[in-house]
Amino acid sequence: MISKRLQKLNPYKPGEQPNDRKYIKLNANENPYPASPKAAKAVKTVSNEKMGLYPDPESIDLKKAIAAMLNECNGVLVPADNQPQLPFSITEDMIFCGNGSDEVLSFVFYAFFDDDKPVIIPEHTYSFYPVYAGYYQIPLKKIPLNEDFSIDKETMVTTDSTGIIFANPNAPTGKSLSIDEIEQMLKSYPSDKVFVVDEAYADFSGHTVLPLLKKYSNLLVIRTFSKSMAFAGMRLGFAVGSPELINALTTTKNSFNHFPIDRICQAAGIAACADSAWYKKNCRKIMQTRDFFQSELQKAGWTVIPSQTNFILAGKKGKTGKEVYEAIKKEGILVRYFDIDTIRDYVRISIGTDKQMKQLLDIMKQL
Amino acid sequence: MISKRLQKLNPYKPGEQPNDRKYIKLNANENPYPASPKAAKAVKTVSNEKMGLYPDPESIDLKKAIAAMLNECNGVLVPADNQPQLPFSITEDMIFCGNGSDEVLSFVFYAFFDDDKPVIIPEHTYSFYPVYAGYYQIPLKKIPLNEDFSIDKETMVTTDSTGIIFANPNAPTGKSLSIDEIEQMLKSYPSDKVFVVDEAYADFSGHTVLPLLKKYSNLLVIRTFSKSMAFAGMRLGFAVGSPELINALTTTKNSFNHFPIDRICQAAGIAACADSAWYKKNCRKIMQTRDFFQSELQKAGWTVIPSQTNFILAGKKGKTGKEVYEAIKKEGILVRYFDIDTIRDYVRISIGTDKQMKQLLDIMKQL
Repeated sequence: MISKRLQKLNPYKPGEQPNDRKYIKLNANENPYPASPKAAKAVKTVSNEKMGLYPDPESIDLKKAIAAMLNECNGVLVPADNQPQLPFSITEDMIFCGNGSDEVLSFVFYAFFDDDKPVIIPEHTYSFYPVYAGYYQIPLKKIPLNEDFSIDKETMVTTDSTGIIFANPNAPTGKSLSIDEIEQMLKSYPSDKVFVVDEAYADFSGHTVLPLLKKYSNLLVIRTFSKSMAFAGMRLGFAVGSPELINALTTTKNSFNHFPIDRICQAAGIAACADSAWYKKNCRKIMQTRDFFQSELQKAGWTVIPSQTNFILAGKKGKTGKEVYEAIKKEGILVRYFDIDTIRDYVRISIGTDKQMKQLLDIMKQL
Repeated sequence: MISKRLQKLNPYKPGEQPNDRKYIKLNANENPYPASPKAAKAVKTVSNEKMGLYPDPESIDLKKAIAAMLNECNGVLVPADNQPQLPFSITEDMIFCGNGSDEVLSFVFYAFFDDDKPVIIPEHTYSFYPVYAGYYQIPLKKIPLNEDFSIDKETMVTTDSTGIIFANPNAPTGKSLSIDEIEQMLKSYPSDKVFVVDEAYADFSGHTVLPLLKKYSNLLVIRTFSKSMAFAGMRLGFAVGSPELINALTTTKNSFNHFPIDRICQAAGIAACADSAWYKKNCRKIMQTRDFFQSELQKAGWTVIPSQTNFILAGKKGKTGKEVYEAIKKEGILVRYFDIDTIRDYVRISIGTDKQMKQLLDIMKQL
């Protein structure tokens, strides 16, 4: 009774959520700090009368709020000193909202990637990309990382393709390409093919390629509210790009699920965007905790890939990632390992509060 | 830059939402009564701490709550006297939840319909079905309705196909097939092809085909919280079927968007299911208002298709649906017309409160 297309699927597997005991969850890159209290307050303004009325299908007010936040904070919550100023104002017609960036990404694969050539991704990156390619039966080509876990820029752009997508900072490596490096890639890539940069973790890096949108109309930037905005439980993500690309995503949405974001999530998202001070403060804390944790781990003899995100990839000589994961789990903390070549000897650790990371540090020093 | 698949799309168009003045909205089959106050209360229990944590991807507690509600109310909120008892208990492994029944339906097309034969739909039914077929490039065959606007059962099941889907009660006609009639169709239809009955409006009809699930493992029933449960703004729908079909939908979801339903919607849905008394009362009111409105319109010389839903299709000799729609809109009430053969001379009117319908009746009597 199952379609042929379904029989070929290989679904995404997120971090585990075991219920056998209470764990400190450092395995899903969730934010250890709460969402804005103003967002929680906005949730309460949606009455049971309003619950029965369809939401705005285009989330216009939410798009305006997102655009205003991006303009106000120069594209990322805590911009680095050398992050260039946005050379234009982001407007709501440059924004598409979806039910989590996972849904936005699915529409991106549908809207921009054809099945006559492969879509290009790095060998290690967000593991949902190959799943989307499978969902729409789009061929996929994985380009191995360089030895230092950086993306092989040259091969990514010179391989014949229907489009490119990668995360920057990348996952699970935590490494970034610079804006200049990405601009070099864009210069070498056909301007009639869509070049997607998934900036799920950009707020923790201080950098964004949003300024490049002015020159490259084939660039599309994906963002999520799940990480730096502490909205994983709310399901909200968005794309920023030229109105042409945004219109294509809207047509796709209207052919799949016309009303993707409920009233409450829209209200909460609008309030969250208006409270960027809350998120800036917590984003800074996470970046500080990460840098502290990273340097302490290195002092304790761990190999750490320098991270621009809210997680780090760390390994201990002589131990597989799985062994490390199991030893840490016994102590009541969940991290994540990947049973894949190249990164088999690492675990991915989400950055929690200072207290949580000190607790984890004590455990890891014993290993 | 747009994919070939996107270029062929013809997106869904829902009822208009104009902002030029305040209208009484009787054009989107929304519920005129609020959602359960208990659901609104449950929304407020989700703290900003919880907003940052991913929701349960499988909505297990919500599935249990839906199953309990269906068992408690014998499958529909206000069962008719001749609705057969459910011959089994519905369990959570027979339920799949999605971000509105629109998303559930999209996954149904993906999971069960192949592209080597057409999926069969009635000529007039939910206008999103052809859009889904287009999204996944599945051929579609529309079977004309009988002269009395009923579904041509015989032709539906004897046409070579990859699957069948129709709404029961159907939209925009408001007409139902009986359980016996649908069982006759199932008997004549290949048992290895999925037969989908979209019961978006079943609660207003007193009937459901859920009892047939015991004998027909290829039957899949789709439900929405948007209509009888007054949750249009919340985006929640579900499918009921054999665990085999439910598993296929879960695999599909996990290849598209792993966390389709946010924490708040899950909490609200659980509370709503536990307050079926609230919905039974309002469902009864809507059915009474519908029957009153219908009979008054007929007395006033309108042609009315007897409706089993929360809307009616009505026409006036010598006027097109568009003319009627425009005349009513001038008076501040929105209804919907369809510029399509067969139903061009009708408008579709959602059932509001008694007061709203009396106001509309006064307007329509003048036309």
